[in-house]
Amino acid sequence: MEQRPLILVTNDDGISAPGILHLSSIAQKFGDVFVIAPDKPQSGMGHAITINSTLRLQKTKYHSWAVGEYSCSGTPVDCVKMAINKLLPRKPDLIVSGINHGSNSSINVIYSGTMSAAIEGSLEGTSSVGFSLSDFSIDADFTATTLFIERIITSCLKTELPKGMCLNVNFPKLKADEINGVKICRQARANWVEEFEERQDPYGRAYYWLTGKFVNFEPEATDTDEWALQNGYVSIVPVMHDLTAHQYINHLKNIL
Amino acid sequence: MEQRPLILVTNDDGISAPGILHLSSIAQKFGDVFVIAPDKPQSGMGHAITINSTLRLQKTKYHSWAVGEYSCSGTPVDCVKMAINKLLPRKPDLIVSGINHGSNSSINVIYSGTMSAAIEGSLEGTSSVGFSLSDFSIDADFTATTLFIERIITSCLKTELPKGMCLNVNFPKLKADEINGVKICRQARANWVEEFEERQDPYGRAYYWLTGKFVNFEPEATDTDEWALQNGYVSIVPVMHDLTAHQYINHLKNIL
Repeated sequence: MEQRPLILVTNDDGISAPGILHLSSIAQKFGDVFVIAPDKPQSGMGHAITINSTLRLQKTKYHSWAVGEYSCSGTPVDCVKMAINKLLPRKPDLIVSGINHGSNSSINVIYSGTMSAAIEGSLEGTSSVGFSLSDFSIDADFTATTLFIERIITSCLKTELPKGMCLNVNFPKLKADEINGVKICRQARANWVEEFEERQDPYGRAYYWLTGKFVNFEPEATDTDEWALQNGYVSIVPVMHDLTAHQYINHLKNIL
Repeated sequence: MEQRPLILVTNDDGISAPGILHLSSIAQKFGDVFVIAPDKPQSGMGHAITINSTLRLQKTKYHSWAVGEYSCSGTPVDCVKMAINKLLPRKPDLIVSGINHGSNSSINVIYSGTMSAAIEGSLEGTSSVGFSLSDFSIDADFTATTLFIERIITSCLKTELPKGMCLNVNFPKLKADEINGVKICRQARANWVEEFEERQDPYGRAYYWLTGKFVNFEPEATDTDEWALQNGYVSIVPVMHDLTAHQYINHLKNIL
């Protein structure tokens, strides 16, 4: 009998977040699902790993259909490393991360724990996809994502993604019949303009909350993920972990 | 009288690490130095930002030549955001990060807090450079880095780096007269093979330390940062924050 695909599921919102429950419930239709995710929210952790402290694992039971399930005290990237190098019986056939509560389009990809887990997966040589919904609410409605996720999982299990590349999939906050389809895009040039909100603790000492406003530097460009989401499409950006700005190598040879 | 350049100095090893003291002591020859760095080691924090908890600032006095100096309870990226959006009187002319105790060549760039601070700097539109020495020791000898750092700072203050690009500079663990020069390189394809070391706490519960072995997938290639360092050169890689794998956009349009 043919072995079912082994699918690793993780996220950055934590093992019991609605988004990961929705994602693993879809993934289990296509293979054996193994879940490992942070034991607490790890949003904004980027590609952080835990090297200055220890890691803990705990067996959990949120995903009743899973063949294995752990929460981990570390970051999303720690979770992927732990699964692949310690917990899984064999190399997974696919890694899916999310569904993140909140968009990871554009520059958010570099701050995102959800996407860093997918990037780490691609580093380990496994097809990996991060999914995010443009809705931060804990009560976000993930229904409209289902058919698209099924289609992407099917496609990735059929044909491995190119080595060293993963997918950043973002869903607009729309009902299924309002979504116009899928766009393959590039990451929009954008940034956050931060405002640090200063408060006083009960002892009169200042502390700060990081807040900010997202600024799209190219709102007119129609080939970006931001444009796709604004116009009712699911955005898919191929993402790589080679950060070399190859186009500047010769330029630098002249100026340094 | 002409204004001196404003140079922001940060790192991921913490405000009092020997590496940042060496770097800021060099930078102050070229401009007014403002230092902000984590109040504790933040190695491996990647592009993490602090959004689930608050941030604290404290005035410190490790860098006697600095025009301003703070430790921050957050990550290296938090430090850069805090400096630019809250503390600095104007946009800095240059951001330097490091000198990291340990190499940030190859794939280490995505785990590195030192390099994430530089990447964040480039996102903010300022020429930014991360410096690392291939020596993890707290007693590492930074002497040989001085002339190269002076040369790079001079060059970056004279000609701004292209927008959206920063530099990842790594030094081999060699004496000044053993260094063969500088190579402009690309990031080597490499990875860590992790081994999680399992231990038992005094109460009989398991915990784990993340350890691993670095594997260079292309040891023969002579245009990589790993080759440069192995062969006695200072490696300089131009680094960008657009993670789009542009070469795969058309491929994806066919398979998804």
